[in-house]
Amino acid sequence: MNIKKWIGTVLCMVCMLPLRAQIVWQPVEPGVWKGVVGTPEAYSLLEVAGCTPQKEGFKRLPEVGLPEWAGKIVGNVQDGKTSLRIPLQKKEQLYGFGLNFQTVHQRGKILNLHTDHYGGKDNGRTHAPVPFYVSSRGYGIFINSARYLTVYAGTGARKDSPEAPVAKDRNTDKTWVARPYSDAVSVLVPAGGVEIYLFAGPAPMDVVRRYNLFCGGGNLPPRWGLGFTQRTQKLYTAGQVMEEAEAFERKGFPLDYIGLEPGWQSKAYPCTFEWDKERYPAPADFIAKMQERGVRINLWTNPYVSPESGIYNEMYPFSGSHTVWCGIVPDFATVQARRLWKDKLEKEHINIGVSGFKIDEVDGYDHYIWPDVATFPSGISAEQMRQTYGLWVQRTTAELYKQRNQRTFGLVRASNAGGNSFPYVLYNDYYSHQDFITALINSGFSGVLWTPEVRGSKSGEEWLRRFQSVVFSPMAMINAWASGTKPWSFPEVAEQVKEYAMLRMQMMPYWYTEFARYHYDGIPPFRAMNLEPGFNPEQAVSVEMADRNLEDNPYLEAVTKEIKDQYMAGEYLLVAPMFTGQATRKVVLPKGDWYDFYTGKYAGNGETIIVTPGLDRIPVYVKDGGIIPMMEARLHAPAAGEKVNLEIRHYGKAEGSYRLYDDDGETFDYEKGAFCWREIKVVRQKDGKLKGTVSKAEKGKPNSVASVTWKFMSM
Amino acid sequence: MNIKKWIGTVLCMVCMLPLRAQIVWQPVEPGVWKGVVGTPEAYSLLEVAGCTPQKEGFKRLPEVGLPEWAGKIVGNVQDGKTSLRIPLQKKEQLYGFGLNFQTVHQRGKILNLHTDHYGGKDNGRTHAPVPFYVSSRGYGIFINSARYLTVYAGTGARKDSPEAPVAKDRNTDKTWVARPYSDAVSVLVPAGGVEIYLFAGPAPMDVVRRYNLFCGGGNLPPRWGLGFTQRTQKLYTAGQVMEEAEAFERKGFPLDYIGLEPGWQSKAYPCTFEWDKERYPAPADFIAKMQERGVRINLWTNPYVSPESGIYNEMYPFSGSHTVWCGIVPDFATVQARRLWKDKLEKEHINIGVSGFKIDEVDGYDHYIWPDVATFPSGISAEQMRQTYGLWVQRTTAELYKQRNQRTFGLVRASNAGGNSFPYVLYNDYYSHQDFITALINSGFSGVLWTPEVRGSKSGEEWLRRFQSVVFSPMAMINAWASGTKPWSFPEVAEQVKEYAMLRMQMMPYWYTEFARYHYDGIPPFRAMNLEPGFNPEQAVSVEMADRNLEDNPYLEAVTKEIKDQYMAGEYLLVAPMFTGQATRKVVLPKGDWYDFYTGKYAGNGETIIVTPGLDRIPVYVKDGGIIPMMEARLHAPAAGEKVNLEIRHYGKAEGSYRLYDDDGETFDYEKGAFCWREIKVVRQKDGKLKGTVSKAEKGKPNSVASVTWKFMSM
Repeated sequence: MNIKKWIGTVLCMVCMLPLRAQIVWQPVEPGVWKGVVGTPEAYSLLEVAGCTPQKEGFKRLPEVGLPEWAGKIVGNVQDGKTSLRIPLQKKEQLYGFGLNFQTVHQRGKILNLHTDHYGGKDNGRTHAPVPFYVSSRGYGIFINSARYLTVYAGTGARKDSPEAPVAKDRNTDKTWVARPYSDAVSVLVPAGGVEIYLFAGPAPMDVVRRYNLFCGGGNLPPRWGLGFTQRTQKLYTAGQVMEEAEAFERKGFPLDYIGLEPGWQSKAYPCTFEWDKERYPAPADFIAKMQERGVRINLWTNPYVSPESGIYNEMYPFSGSHTVWCGIVPDFATVQARRLWKDKLEKEHINIGVSGFKIDEVDGYDHYIWPDVATFPSGISAEQMRQTYGLWVQRTTAELYKQRNQRTFGLVRASNAGGNSFPYVLYNDYYSHQDFITALINSGFSGVLWTPEVRGSKSGEEWLRRFQSVVFSPMAMINAWASGTKPWSFPEVAEQVKEYAMLRMQMMPYWYTEFARYHYDGIPPFRAMNLEPGFNPEQAVSVEMADRNLEDNPYLEAVTKEIKDQYMAGEYLLVAPMFTGQATRKVVLPKGDWYDFYTGKYAGNGETIIVTPGLDRIPVYVKDGGIIPMMEARLHAPAAGEKVNLEIRHYGKAEGSYRLYDDDGETFDYEKGAFCWREIKVVRQKDGKLKGTVSKAEKGKPNSVASVTWKFMSM
Repeated sequence: MNIKKWIGTVLCMVCMLPLRAQIVWQPVEPGVWKGVVGTPEAYSLLEVAGCTPQKEGFKRLPEVGLPEWAGKIVGNVQDGKTSLRIPLQKKEQLYGFGLNFQTVHQRGKILNLHTDHYGGKDNGRTHAPVPFYVSSRGYGIFINSARYLTVYAGTGARKDSPEAPVAKDRNTDKTWVARPYSDAVSVLVPAGGVEIYLFAGPAPMDVVRRYNLFCGGGNLPPRWGLGFTQRTQKLYTAGQVMEEAEAFERKGFPLDYIGLEPGWQSKAYPCTFEWDKERYPAPADFIAKMQERGVRINLWTNPYVSPESGIYNEMYPFSGSHTVWCGIVPDFATVQARRLWKDKLEKEHINIGVSGFKIDEVDGYDHYIWPDVATFPSGISAEQMRQTYGLWVQRTTAELYKQRNQRTFGLVRASNAGGNSFPYVLYNDYYSHQDFITALINSGFSGVLWTPEVRGSKSGEEWLRRFQSVVFSPMAMINAWASGTKPWSFPEVAEQVKEYAMLRMQMMPYWYTEFARYHYDGIPPFRAMNLEPGFNPEQAVSVEMADRNLEDNPYLEAVTKEIKDQYMAGEYLLVAPMFTGQATRKVVLPKGDWYDFYTGKYAGNGETIIVTPGLDRIPVYVKDGGIIPMMEARLHAPAAGEKVNLEIRHYGKAEGSYRLYDDDGETFDYEKGAFCWREIKVVRQKDGKLKGTVSKAEKGKPNSVASVTWKFMSM
């Protein structure tokens, strides 16, 4: 036994043994504090995202002080890594930790936050592994690190903790549990220091708002971005795409933008970023013609550069050591790589009218993307590059549009903290309708947008069910890159599909306003029930022993239930998607009266209802006093300056109000004040009847309202 | 965009940019070289295991020189981590990387070697994440690190590699593949340096032998360890255990040792290591009575110390920061923790005759074991402790028996490199018969033993099928801790079960010799077909497109087939287990004639046969000229000095030979020369008949053979 050799090391390590150091909190924005442990790395998520806090928005939040218990948050540097410990109270629930697909309640989870595709398990590997969480107690924690973080979200117990659980004898004590109580969130940051941010509430929704505002506010898409979009089959030619747009118009389906899949490029996987001369001989002309038809063009790409691309040679010295599908990987942490890519995209696409991009493969299945042993000329490690590549491609392309004062809206397969204001929606290859809804719910905790896109379907029922969901999401998209499916491909449900596509268009004033709230106030347009006042998680939670059979479940682990199949859409709507094969479902209604979106009928109050909506309907409920501004059904979003006729719906018995947002819908002039909020009010008059009013548009401000009619849905 | 802050860091990092440094190889044993990259950590796997190379064994291996291409192995330190790159040739296959459960061919895998339970996926998290692999080209690589290693086993391509794959256009080129060719294994070691070992062949089996010999040689169990064992239900009393042993004897089922599950302890999960006074009022007496009956006692435990244990207070300062099931975690990297635990086990158990232990829960489901943020008084990190805890509990307990000159044989749930000679067999809670067989196959590449234990079963068929397999494994065990099942619990197959239990006993001379070969020559007793001369992997491998449907398989990934359901058992046997529901199966026979184990009939040669063995039989085949020494059926293994009657079987037409091993079967006297090898020879005489001879036992050496009879099975 030769133990002497490492005794030396052991002793050295003892000298370095951590102080359990308290963190000094320094205020950075109202209700936001920053703490520093060790020596934080200069390369961080916020640094890469380059976002500026949306300072105005904080003024509309309650004043709060540093939580008293903040002094109990400790951080140490040990074994070259930073360890953080944030205390937890009993019954506290945690939300967030990035874009999870199967769970909403995160307490008790162990996650390794790692940019990746979602592989069927919530283990921290996801398209947006955002190191931010929200507590039901009304605070949030964000760790500004571009490393793979290991998170113990309330597991593990210190032997010296005053709250340490008490040992029990498993032989005879029936109250023995496999996972004893843990009184803290612990995080391991594989770096010699880190910045940690603490967000106050008081309510969890206030925490989310502060986080979003701190990261620049949510994205405000162009109006057309909220219209309908179709991605055509991968090898479609310009002619086929034009035919497709014609067919949409002829059949009366709305369409604002078409996405071209890999075939528009001369080579793909890796990419040239250059048009294929056979399939698209005259791209500028093609785009102009499509635009005349009211249809914009979005281009698929991944950032990996083909040896056949015109920028390959120049990019080579600014690319990583390893290739992805034999394409070089631009080191976007260098100015040179960003400049080369920007110039290429600007010249080839943006200058001829391309409206945006779908940037694929930046999440990275390990087998496809660069390995963690890769190196980059900037000196940024492979790990850091993996955690931030999604941010880089968003930032780089967003800057291109910003400098033209033109809004864009596209798709990206990876993001991270700080990307909140980037004009991108996340998506993936996984195709579970249920998991897509849970992702939509969780997107609201992480400052990202998510689309439960529709691709192929095995039946008309599935097609319609998925379609109904995507209409109540940030991007109403059919992605037919592989299947070539059209909205009318299942004739037995084509009318219902059209009805919902049109509903999406009718609701545009509501959607657009809700994204404005996201931008100015940090309120996620799509979010969990858990952020809704009056929602009682206890109503939905039940803990039961999974199985008393020791052979199958040796530790008799408990199983937790949570609400992960219904969500809030904007200020007033509760959406409860139906999944293939379901005829009925439970809907958990928060406290307060709720009304059916379609009929205005009373649905319930603080209770769990069982509904049988039929195939034609996705259940949607409106809060008492809810106001939904709608416009006439149309095939394209209104252009800048165009006016629409509003139909303002009111639900329930209570009086109500809503602030309707307006701007030109296409430029960034709103940042210079070219926007307005109009007050909609419904009050009960002396005769007992409800009456609605809309405040006038401010002079000189954008106004897209032609006329207003009122509809009192629950009269 | 505030990019300045980290530009500073970037520049610093550039200074540190890696040289792609060639490794200097230094010979350490015949055919084994050591290389050093950066500054290796003093705390390593070999250091913890404390093993000494089995030098004698190397003499029986071919002489070899350093492979010429060794100069192409490079290592760098980058971002505080060590990166290794080992070149690969086309068609080279890789085996090993620890105890995998679903795959044998490892080329193309990405693994994070991390001690853990097996969770249904071969991702590097396993009970023995041994950082060693064997190439079909006849060399092996071992990385002596107690860190979580990320392994790219032939994925990822460098842009500057001369072998770099060529970019293809996925739009139109049908030969495009999702995973382009990779010409290297890359490993990321999260430490500033590491030791790497290179093992020569020439054959892959020679590589495995060198690795095992380097790590001290394989374990030689006591003879009784290869007998039959039953683990009784968790709350059994001394009386119930004695009744169980009586029932075995009465019904004529062999039994060498019984394992007591948690109920023998006064408290379990965490543990006191003290006898429960109600269930075991007189443990010394109980053990003595059992021993009289020929049945030894093995004790379940985990190492986590209950506050009720007599050693709790003394252990407290030598335990980690976090608890496991509210028990403190001994820091076995401190002499004090080892001493306290040793003393306790010695006094309470070993001194009164306990034959060994089953050490549970040292693999660690993340939710149960200490988190990676835990600290230990030795200064060893949580990560290093996790990678080595299985080694520590084995080493600590093995030393206790060694100092008494008494062999032990037990179970442990985690191991790692260097544990090759420890007297422990790995097991887990997962219960897939198929995966258990694949683990048995892979155990042979990693210097560990694995038992496909039998627990409950849903039917007599399953019971018998599992039983047939476990009889051809390192430990013939029923683990009835939860179910209380007995070998005869399924009456419809009780006779067949007994037949196979007896066959296990009859084959003991063969098994014992095969373990001696493991010990002295490093030849794994249970191992993959891929180590067998004449086995042609091409015969079994077919690559096909999984599915041409882009919706389900967007990258059209290929699927590889491999042989993972049949294995070699000792020098001559090929075992092809049957799984529940199977009536027929394919068996891939290597080149050379193969004969049925039961009948001696010719089975085939270098071909894939389809067999329908019936429920009574697990297919087993013997190589031409194979010699299997057997003894009479009996209920207990022969004690030291006891003599048995041999029946030596010969199979096929070819002449044959075998070296039969003998020693006292219980002590370490063999290390001082008290052992012998006897030559068994079968030669064809002039009359064409086969005749067998056995060399005499050397004078003064152990000899357990009373008489010999011969059985020519293929006459």
